[in-house]
Parts: sequence; C-alpha cells; structure tokens
Amino acid sequence: MEEKKKEELEWRRKTWKLVSKVRLESPLIQCITNFVSMDLMANTLLSAGASPAMVHSLEEIHEFTPRVSALCLNVGTLSSSSLPAMIAAAKLCSQLDIPWVLDPVAVSASSFRFDACVQLVQFKPTVIRGNASEIISLSSCSLQSSAASMGVDSTHGSMDAVEAAKLLAQTSGAIVAVSGATDIVTDGNQVVGAHNGVPLMQKITATGCAVTALIAAFVAVDKSHALDAAVSALAVFGVAGELGMKMAKGPASLRMHLIDSLYGLDEATLQSHVNITSLC
Amino acid sequence: MEEKKKEELEWRRKTWKLVSKVRLESPLIQCITNFVSMDLMANTLLSAGASPAMVHSLEEIHEFTPRVSALCLNVGTLSSSSLPAMIAAAKLCSQLDIPWVLDPVAVSASSFRFDACVQLVQFKPTVIRGNASEIISLSSCSLQSSAASMGVDSTHGSMDAVEAAKLLAQTSGAIVAVSGATDIVTDGNQVVGAHNGVPLMQKITATGCAVTALIAAFVAVDKSHALDAAVSALAVFGVAGELGMKMAKGPASLRMHLIDSLYGLDEATLQSHVNITSLC
Amino acid sequence: MEEKKKEELEWRRKTWKLVSKVRLESPLIQCITNFVSMDLMANTLLSAGASPAMVHSLEEIHEFTPRVSALCLNVGTLSSSSLPAMIAAAKLCSQLDIPWVLDPVAVSASSFRFDACVQLVQFKPTVIRGNASEIISLSSCSLQSSAASMGVDSTHGSMDAVEAAKLLAQTSGAIVAVSGATDIVTDGNQVVGAHNGVPLMQKITATGCAVTALIAAFVAVDKSHALDAAVSALAVFGVAGELGMKMAKGPASLRMHLIDSLYGLDEATLQSHVNITSLC
Repeated sequence: MEEKKKEELEWRRKTWKLVSKVRLESPLIQCITNFVSMDLMANTLLSAGASPAMVHSLEEIHEFTPRVSALCLNVGTLSSSSLPAMIAAAKLCSQLDIPWVLDPVAVSASSFRFDACVQLVQFKPTVIRGNASEIISLSSCSLQSSAASMGVDSTHGSMDAVEAAKLLAQTSGAIVAVSGATDIVTDGNQVVGAHNGVPLMQKITATGCAVTALIAAFVAVDKSHALDAAVSALAVFGVAGELGMKMAKGPASLRMHLIDSLYGLDEATLQSHVNITSLC
Repeated sequence: MEEKKKEELEWRRKTWKLVSKVRLESPLIQCITNFVSMDLMANTLLSAGASPAMVHSLEEIHEFTPRVSALCLNVGTLSSSSLPAMIAAAKLCSQLDIPWVLDPVAVSASSFRFDACVQLVQFKPTVIRGNASEIISLSSCSLQSSAASMGVDSTHGSMDAVEAAKLLAQTSGAIVAVSGATDIVTDGNQVVGAHNGVPLMQKITATGCAVTALIAAFVAVDKSHALDAAVSALAVFGVAGELGMKMAKGPASLRMHLIDSLYGLDEATLQSHVNITSLC
Repeated sequence: MEEKKKEELEWRRKTWKLVSKVRLESPLIQCITNFVSMDLMANTLLSAGASPAMVHSLEEIHEFTPRVSALCLNVGTLSSSSLPAMIAAAKLCSQLDIPWVLDPVAVSASSFRFDACVQLVQFKPTVIRGNASEIISLSSCSLQSSAASMGVDSTHGSMDAVEAAKLLAQTSGAIVAVSGATDIVTDGNQVVGAHNGVPLMQKITATGCAVTALIAAFVAVDKSHALDAAVSALAVFGVAGELGMKMAKGPASLRMHLIDSLYGLDEATLQSHVNITSLC
C-alpha cells in the first residue's frame, strides 16, 4: 500500500518533469502523417510547447530528418508515394539514434498497409502506439486474425491486447503502447497503465494520432526512458481530455477544450489528475 | 391539409429511425475526398455514430472497399493520382451493390474535373449531391453553360436546379440532391424538399462535403430507400446547424456547435425541427 | 505629431475600405498550399468574405488559374508532385497580371525547398510573406546562414529582418511582409509596421499561412496598391486575434474566436483597434 502510494507519487513527479522539459526545450518533431490528422497533431504539439514540422517529401528527408529531435510516422493515409519517405526517415533515425514513434493506423485495412508497417518496424521504432485491434494485428503478423476490424476504430479493449503488446515489444525492441479505457504501455516485461482520459475522445477524429505525436515530443526530451515518456504523454493527453470534458458539450467542443487545457496545464492540476499504476 | 400533416409526421419518424440506425450499426464509410474536408467529414461521421475511414490508396481499394458499408467520393482536390483510386472504388461498389455517393465539387473548374465526374457517374452512384451550380453543370454536360461558377460556391439557388436535377437523376439512375436554402432531392420523378439549415453554414468550409458523407452513412443503413436516406441526412445536418446557430457567434463557433448538436441530437428535438415536404 | 495622427487615420480608413471591398466583391482566391493549413486558410477566406478554391492539380491550372482574382502559393508541404503546379500557376499569373502571393514556409528546411522558393520568386510574386527567419533566409539566398531555424517557427524577431526584407523587395520587385510582434511590410524603400495581434496566435498552426491567404484576398481587390493591401490584411487578422483573445482560454478557443471575430468585424471596432505606422 505504502509502496503503491510512493510509486504513484513518483509517476506524478516524472510526468510534470516531462511536461516542463517539452515546454522548455521545444523539441522539433517531424511528422509524416495522414491528411486527416495534420491539423490536430500540429496543434497538439504546439499546445504542449513542441515545434511541429509536417515535412514529408522524400526530397527533404536526408537534409531535414537528421536535425529533428524526434520523428512521428503514421500510416493513416499511406500511399505508394508516401511510403518511401517514411522508410527513408525511419532508416535515418535508426542510424542516427533519433527517437521515432510508429502509429500503425488501421494496420489490417490491406496487405499493402500491413506489409508497410511490418517493414517500418524493422527500422526499430522507439515506441509503437495503436489501439488494441491494431496492436493485436501487428503483433500476430496475421491479417486474417483481425478481419473483424477493418477501420480505424478498435473492436477490442486495451486489456485484451496486453499479451500481444508484450510479444510485439519483445520481438521489435520497441516500447508498445495500447490506447483504450486504460492505456497500456510495456517494454515486453514491465506493464504500466495510464487510467486517464474520457470515452468521448474516441468521437474526435485523430486523437489517437495526436497522442502518438505527443509521445514523440516526450520521448524527444528523455530518450533514454522511452517507457516513462510514453506513459506520461498518454496520461497528460488523458488529463487534458478530462479537464476539457468539464466544459465540453460534445466532441467538437471537447476537442477545443482539450487543446486549451493541454496548453494551460499547471503542476498542481496535472498532479491531482495523473493516474498511472504498474499492472504487472 | 390532413394529408400534408400526415406526410410530415411520416418524415419525422423516418428521419429519427435512420439517425438511430446509424448510431446502432455504426456503418464503416470509406471516404476518398479532398484534403480540405477530411477533418470535418470524419468528425461529422463520428458525431453521427458512423465509422469513417479515409482510405484512398489505389493499392488498398481491392481489399478494403468490398468490406465497407458505403463509399463517399469527392472531387474537391482531384488529381491524376487520386482519380484511378476513385474509379476503382466506384467500380467495385457498383459490382458489389455497395451504395456510394458522389460529390462533384466545383465540377466546372476544369475539363479534367468535368470529364472525371462524367466518368464516375457511369459507375452508377446511389446518390449525387452538389450545389445548384454543380448539378446544373453536371446535368447539362456542358462546360460552357456554367462558366459563371468556377469556384466551389454556388451562383444559383437550389430551386433553379430542379429540372436539371430531375434530368440528371433520369439519365444517371442516381438520386440527385441539391443543397441550398431548401435542399432538393429527386429520383427523377418525385421531388422532396428539406427546409432545414441556416445560411451561415455556407461560410464554413466543407459543410457540403460533410453532409455528402452523412448521406453515405444514412444510405448505408437503408440502401433500398436512398431517396429517404438522402433527404433525412440533409434535414438532420440542417437541424444540427439550426441548433448550433442558437449558440454560435460566427462561422467557427457554428462549426463546433453543429457537430456537438449532431452528436447529442435526441428524438424530441429532432422531430420538432425536421421540416421535409413533397414539392412535386 | 499632427502628421502622424493624420497618417494613422488614413490607415484606418484604408483598412476598412479593403475589408468592405473583399466582402462586396468576394474575390475567388486559388490556394496551392500545404495540407496542414487548408482548413484554416479556407475558413479565414470565407470569414473575410472571399471565395477560396483549393485547386492544385497541374491538369487544372491552365483552365482555372486565368479566371481567379488572386493566387496564394505556400510551400509548407512541398513535394516534387506539387511543385510543377505551383510553377505553372505562378507563371500564368505573372503573364496575365493576376496578383499572387508567396509564403516560403520553412524555406531553409532543405535545399529542395530553398531552390523551389528561389525559382518561384522569379515569377514575380506581388507579395512575399514569411516570418523573420524565412525572409532572412530567402533574402540572403544562403542556406547556411539560417541553419538555426530548420522548422516553421521563427528564431528571429521581425525587426531583425527589416534590412533583409528591403533587400528581398528590391531584388524581387515584390512587396515583402515579415510577421512578428510587429508585422513589417516594405516595398524596398518605405517600411510600414502593423502592431496588431497577440502572441498566442503563434501557438495555432497555420495562422501564418492563413494571413498570407488573406493578403491575397486584399491584393485581389486593390492590386495597384499591394503594400497597402498587405499591411491592411496583417492588421485586420491581428485585430481579429485581439478580439478573439478577449474570449479565448487557450490556442484552440482563440482560433475559433479569431475566425468568428474576422467574420463579424464592424467599422467602429476595426478602426479603434487598427495600429499601423510608418517605420521609415
């Protein structure tokens, strides 16, 4: 009991430290992402104090990517023209030890997309973040097993994906995060849960994409503790959602209040809301 | 009089039934759409209870499209690289009897765009939705006749387009919907009007695109009554606009309140606002 | 003193005149812009009374561009596939004496982007608008000198860029505008400052892109006075930000209130807020 209390306090302290560090350092985060999410992702990063750069041209990767603090790849509207830029950027990050985060949106939508994600995983993402259906699919490396979830919305709860996430973490070397009622993060061994957020966030397009970008910003300022950074980013985004929910009348006003809350988040408010615990 | 009253009540009942059905079934709606509208379109679908999927890669169509509940095609930012995916998706829907909806945005902007729309119409869209200028252009199949309206904003009122809409419905086999002060919907014979909405909605980009996607969601859950589904979707979106307008201070807050209202719409509120009538 | 007062009154009068003219004439503004900014840019133009058209296909330029009132080019997510359309459109505008505006977003991000901007400048933009870092880079024509600013956010204040802006104006023949705490506009000789706006606007993605589009709309209705039009657009957007700030609780609500304020701006409010002065 004492131990548990102590651990929770430690998470609160860590989370605030990372929020402050992102605000102070304003890391440059390159995003190669789907067209639906660009606006919310850029605004999420700006609100958190990071500097977003939606640079996705193959012609620019070799000059631009080496100078960024972190990279966020998202396959939501993947095409044969965007994939080579993603591969080039992931490869560079892997070579240069720049942290990078993969969001395998709707990985089971097609074999084209699935194969692309499997290929990207080989370039050693620091963190992979998806919903339960996506992580289960990517972990199983089997398109058939997840035919039930074709779209971007999960048909599994996050707790169903714990074993899949651990397996994916072990085989890929990445920290794996599963969004859901409880956000699960694992390094293949330890499993931590962030219990923040509100269900209505799922009715806003690109909230998943946005939190992946936030993870990239947190990892950028503490790359040797990627699990902590990922859990903290998920908790912070969830807290912003909880605060926003107090003023929201529906998904569109929640989106606005969430971003406002993320921007204005202070230490006391954050610490009284963050709810991170070890799960195993 | 009695007859008219009865008809209006019938439309209210139908409209609520479709709203409920979309919420219950959460149809997967594939959108291949312009880059301006993606955010509002996805959020409109989510707010209505549908599941949007902005999957537009040619590589993914053959696997993904056969499993969707409906398809929404929008040529707003058409390019030579996006057109083949649209054609492939429309063709599949036509073959597999999956309902699909066409939004011929700014069809007169160029002969490239006009020809693309004419080609897409050959794959038998279930519904075509545009503003008056767009429907007149597409119906006349004459680029010259509509040179006055180059952009996306209509230079005609919807009532000017009734004959054009009927002709287009007859030649294409599609239900044709014309947005305007009164939204007109026709199967080439019957003409129904939805009198909901507020003028300020025209000052928000992509509201037309968004309502076309909503039509796709409604048609997805009742594909044997596409006219009813199209009219209902237009009325529901208009009612959400009316409710939003009560709180709005300009176009940006209207956009937010419209989406919130669509999400929170209940039976009593909907039925007291829906205003659908037969026009001929 | 008397002189200064008189000049300020003159600017207020001019600014309102341009606001009214845009609302009255609703100029058609073609935007070939980055994917992040499309929504805000279109909504900014609509709120100001202009008619946006995000037409960016090479196939459409030769038919569409000759009929627009002004063109806005933005290289934020430049690619090898979008550059030819930009060049074709800029060339046409130059030949046909249609005003056009260039936004050299993150011009130093890569040599690909830098070279593209240098090439576009040769087609004689009416106005070039960037932040201080961007204008300094483009003016110096030296990628090395600005290596400190890789991303889209400026690392220089606008006053640092006055000499660079004058030089760029002289060599390019364009009016050059530098956004910052004070917005600077110069024709290479005269330098005018617009002192409106609030710092939080920098925490909203694409506000810079949006004001460039607004400049295009203002230049469209008064193309023989491009300096006045550019200053006025910057001031008006800044005033909308100031008005929005009174209601905002963070960057996302500021964005909403800014657009609402731009839409609702009346003569008395505008004139009591506009703050434009000659700097040299």
